[in-house]
Amino acid sequence: MKHFLDVEKAKKKHAHRKWQAALHELIFEAETRAGWAFDLILIISIGLSVITVMLDSVASIRDVYGGFLYGLEWFFTILFTIEYGLRLLCVGRPVLYATSFFGIIDLLAILPTYLALFFPGTQYLTVIRIFRVLRIFRVLKLVTYLGEARLLLTALHASRRKIEVFLYAVIAKVIIFGSIMYVIEGEAHGFTSIPRGIYWAIVTMTTVGYGDISPQTDLGQALASFVMIMGYAIIAVPTGIVTAEITLASREKITTRVCHQCSAEGHDLDAKCCKFCGAEL
Amino acid sequence: MKHFLDVEKAKKKHAHRKWQAALHELIFEAETRAGWAFDLILIISIGLSVITVMLDSVASIRDVYGGFLYGLEWFFTILFTIEYGLRLLCVGRPVLYATSFFGIIDLLAILPTYLALFFPGTQYLTVIRIFRVLRIFRVLKLVTYLGEARLLLTALHASRRKIEVFLYAVIAKVIIFGSIMYVIEGEAHGFTSIPRGIYWAIVTMTTVGYGDISPQTDLGQALASFVMIMGYAIIAVPTGIVTAEITLASREKITTRVCHQCSAEGHDLDAKCCKFCGAEL
Amino acid sequence: MKHFLDVEKAKKKHAHRKWQAALHELIFEAETRAGWAFDLILIISIGLSVITVMLDSVASIRDVYGGFLYGLEWFFTILFTIEYGLRLLCVGRPVLYATSFFGIIDLLAILPTYLALFFPGTQYLTVIRIFRVLRIFRVLKLVTYLGEARLLLTALHASRRKIEVFLYAVIAKVIIFGSIMYVIEGEAHGFTSIPRGIYWAIVTMTTVGYGDISPQTDLGQALASFVMIMGYAIIAVPTGIVTAEITLASREKITTRVCHQCSAEGHDLDAKCCKFCGAEL
Amino acid sequence: MKHFLDVEKAKKKHAHRKWQAALHELIFEAETRAGWAFDLILIISIGLSVITVMLDSVASIRDVYGGFLYGLEWFFTILFTIEYGLRLLCVGRPVLYATSFFGIIDLLAILPTYLALFFPGTQYLTVIRIFRVLRIFRVLKLVTYLGEARLLLTALHASRRKIEVFLYAVIAKVIIFGSIMYVIEGEAHGFTSIPRGIYWAIVTMTTVGYGDISPQTDLGQALASFVMIMGYAIIAVPTGIVTAEITLASREKITTRVCHQCSAEGHDLDAKCCKFCGAEL
Repeated sequence: MKHFLDVEKAKKKHAHRKWQAALHELIFEAETRAGWAFDLILIISIGLSVITVMLDSVASIRDVYGGFLYGLEWFFTILFTIEYGLRLLCVGRPVLYATSFFGIIDLLAILPTYLALFFPGTQYLTVIRIFRVLRIFRVLKLVTYLGEARLLLTALHASRRKIEVFLYAVIAKVIIFGSIMYVIEGEAHGFTSIPRGIYWAIVTMTTVGYGDISPQTDLGQALASFVMIMGYAIIAVPTGIVTAEITLASREKITTRVCHQCSAEGHDLDAKCCKFCGAEL
Repeated sequence: MKHFLDVEKAKKKHAHRKWQAALHELIFEAETRAGWAFDLILIISIGLSVITVMLDSVASIRDVYGGFLYGLEWFFTILFTIEYGLRLLCVGRPVLYATSFFGIIDLLAILPTYLALFFPGTQYLTVIRIFRVLRIFRVLKLVTYLGEARLLLTALHASRRKIEVFLYAVIAKVIIFGSIMYVIEGEAHGFTSIPRGIYWAIVTMTTVGYGDISPQTDLGQALASFVMIMGYAIIAVPTGIVTAEITLASREKITTRVCHQCSAEGHDLDAKCCKFCGAEL
Repeated sequence: MKHFLDVEKAKKKHAHRKWQAALHELIFEAETRAGWAFDLILIISIGLSVITVMLDSVASIRDVYGGFLYGLEWFFTILFTIEYGLRLLCVGRPVLYATSFFGIIDLLAILPTYLALFFPGTQYLTVIRIFRVLRIFRVLKLVTYLGEARLLLTALHASRRKIEVFLYAVIAKVIIFGSIMYVIEGEAHGFTSIPRGIYWAIVTMTTVGYGDISPQTDLGQALASFVMIMGYAIIAVPTGIVTAEITLASREKITTRVCHQCSAEGHDLDAKCCKFCGAEL
Repeated sequence: MKHFLDVEKAKKKHAHRKWQAALHELIFEAETRAGWAFDLILIISIGLSVITVMLDSVASIRDVYGGFLYGLEWFFTILFTIEYGLRLLCVGRPVLYATSFFGIIDLLAILPTYLALFFPGTQYLTVIRIFRVLRIFRVLKLVTYLGEARLLLTALHASRRKIEVFLYAVIAKVIIFGSIMYVIEGEAHGFTSIPRGIYWAIVTMTTVGYGDISPQTDLGQALASFVMIMGYAIIAVPTGIVTAEITLASREKITTRVCHQCSAEGHDLDAKCCKFCGAEL
């Protein structure tokens, strides 16, 4: 009897696994025709749901089609909730998926609609779904794009420490200048507090320049001029950092072949012979 | 009799061809004196017609010279229509010309005036004629400029995938931030919808900063500060991409050494052997 | 008797030195556990005191917690004053420390609170304390960051003359354009004086563009357009300067090969012989 | 008699030449102590005269010191007029000097004050004198700065064709977009004419963004978003151009030494031996 039960269990487990595997292939992979179609439908749904949310935020459209858009929003959210559930079901290690980048995005993409039942307005945050569209790179087999994206990420990763040092210097500067401007201009000219002064300093140093807060006194304008020229000059620093890294990364991509005669490196992609000894590559 | 007709036909065709060839040389080429003069007159006409349209849009000038400018506009449009017809007539494959870059521009340059009969205001779109002036590079035999332009286009073409990836990242970011700001600031502070929030995010991230919509709440200003610093930092990315490509393209241009064995070009400055056939340089 | 006194003196001096050395290790170094803890507490205190000053500047917070924040501010200032005194006491050459970068920052970080007794408002300038946080790099043993910071400083130092020449050109241009705009636009359109015109020129050329002063006449807008395109183009210059230097500095960092004859570093990737002693690499 | 007159003439001519030469050395050169002092006094006078003009433009200062500043302005102008006359007198080829860069600047620096007798207000244009301060580089013997400036000018000169092509592309784009926005937004939203639309397009594409004219319609804001992202992306182009040229120019400055053994180039500034064959440099 016990043996019979064990066999039944194993069968069930096996059947379960088979069913899981098929679902996994459908949902997670894009190699099969069905999996490819699933991903395509998913991406189109995401696009439509983002557009739904956007249209719903426009007052004149909401007044007319509000009910329809609300229904559509719930339709997409329930669809994505089922999909999220299936993903959890068919994946081997659900916790690993749930804590991965895409797992968190998938969860964040459905939560806002439910939250909106308690906190009206949060449903608009479902636009985070837009990040789910990143899967399109896999669906359309855009490997070249993935390569380029990886090169950019490599360059940014390599330069992250320099950029952190740079950001620290920028933050220290905007705090100092924001405080000085608060002392100089005072609350009468819109600099109502140091945080507001820092906000002004960021608006100015990044050359955005809304003009909602701007210095009125001569001393304030003189200091602002200094901050602007400094901001104008130091934008050169992150640009220089990233450019140097991208140049290096681009060059490295090219120069990985080594001559087996003289061991020289640095050959172009189209090179057939070593440029130093003439041996065939 | 049939023979006689055939000869007549061939003669006619020949004559036609001759007449076509002469016209083709006049209109499409700039090697002969007449062709050069034709192009020059064309470019001056284009310049004058663009200025006509611009002046016509200034209310104070239109009030005084409106009729004269209207006549001038029609004069140029009819002139360019005749020219477009002649181009179609004398070119070997009219469809190929009509669907080429210059063919489309030539058509778009005359359409708006006719369209304005039905949709007043569209005549101002004739300024697209300005692109026809690109022919000036051929007229003035500015081959060096063409070379430089080609180098720039090559660099932009080589970096198009990286820039597409970058643009996708920027668009995803402005959608997310525009939506969050819509939720935070609300319609009272000018963020009347998500598309308007996205517009604000683009205005901010590109450091344009009109100030027509700007955050008023503390939380909104804090997020805006983050968006600005991010926009300030990521402008480094396209700059880095294009700079790396231009540097590569410029370097390639430098190596004017030619292999005397296989006539290959594009050798590095430190190359001792041809990278294609292995012969010493 | 004299001998006895000398011994006493030497002992005292010795004891004094010992006490000083222990204090020096505690305050100035971060190698020991106690020194590390001291620096950590110091940095947290600085952070808290900067936040105190910021909160104190917000009217709504000041109205409620004004007294408490005022007390906290004085608490931190007295703390830092004692610390400054101890630093002067235990350091070998007090004058050298007092005139060093960190010595001046340490002094400037406590002065504003005392000055505020005579000139209300200046206490907000204590935010200069934020620069004291630079010590965090030593505390957290962020040597890699120090290396990156040094590379950036080296690049900026190497390009300082080019940037000075560039700044001189920019300053000359904003003076000229500011004056011309003052003549064109006049006081009616916000250009009330040449300095104000120069302020406008800086706001425009650095692409900040507040919009608090903007040209209204046709001629003024035409000139402004020219200034903008020029500003847009010349931002390329500092970027190019810094990028070139960072690229050079990064490349130099790469060549980790060491000559086994003279131990010299900094060889190029394609070097076959040491550039200092001529030995083969 | 004739002989005597000839001698007298020659003597006079010789005396004249001698007097001229001394004056030339004083005014045009900075090698002698007197010449150096002359240049220094000149630069200080220029600086003071520019400050005079600036102060004179501030209404509150003009009301009090107007007469004094007016006198000072004329004093400096007469001084510079005398100086200009002396320069013409003592220079070998007056026409060559008068048509040179500095000759034109020297003339433009004195004309506005005289013109102001007929056209009040033009006296403020005397700030062009600021360019005369460029002579300071010679006076302070700032040869290194001259070298750096030359490197920058070389890089800009080498990239002028690419920048011209780029500027043509930018101008064509702002004309097209300015016209389209004029058609879309119309006169009600500040786009009163095509030239005004072009002004808006320049303000936007260069990321200045005053906000004095900004799109109000949905379609206009969508197009503006496109223009902004494009402007944000294409700023990469001039930066890339100039960076590539500066990198090349910097590299060339370094690599002028040639190994006399193997004729290899590309040695670092601190290299003592050829990095390819090991021979001493």
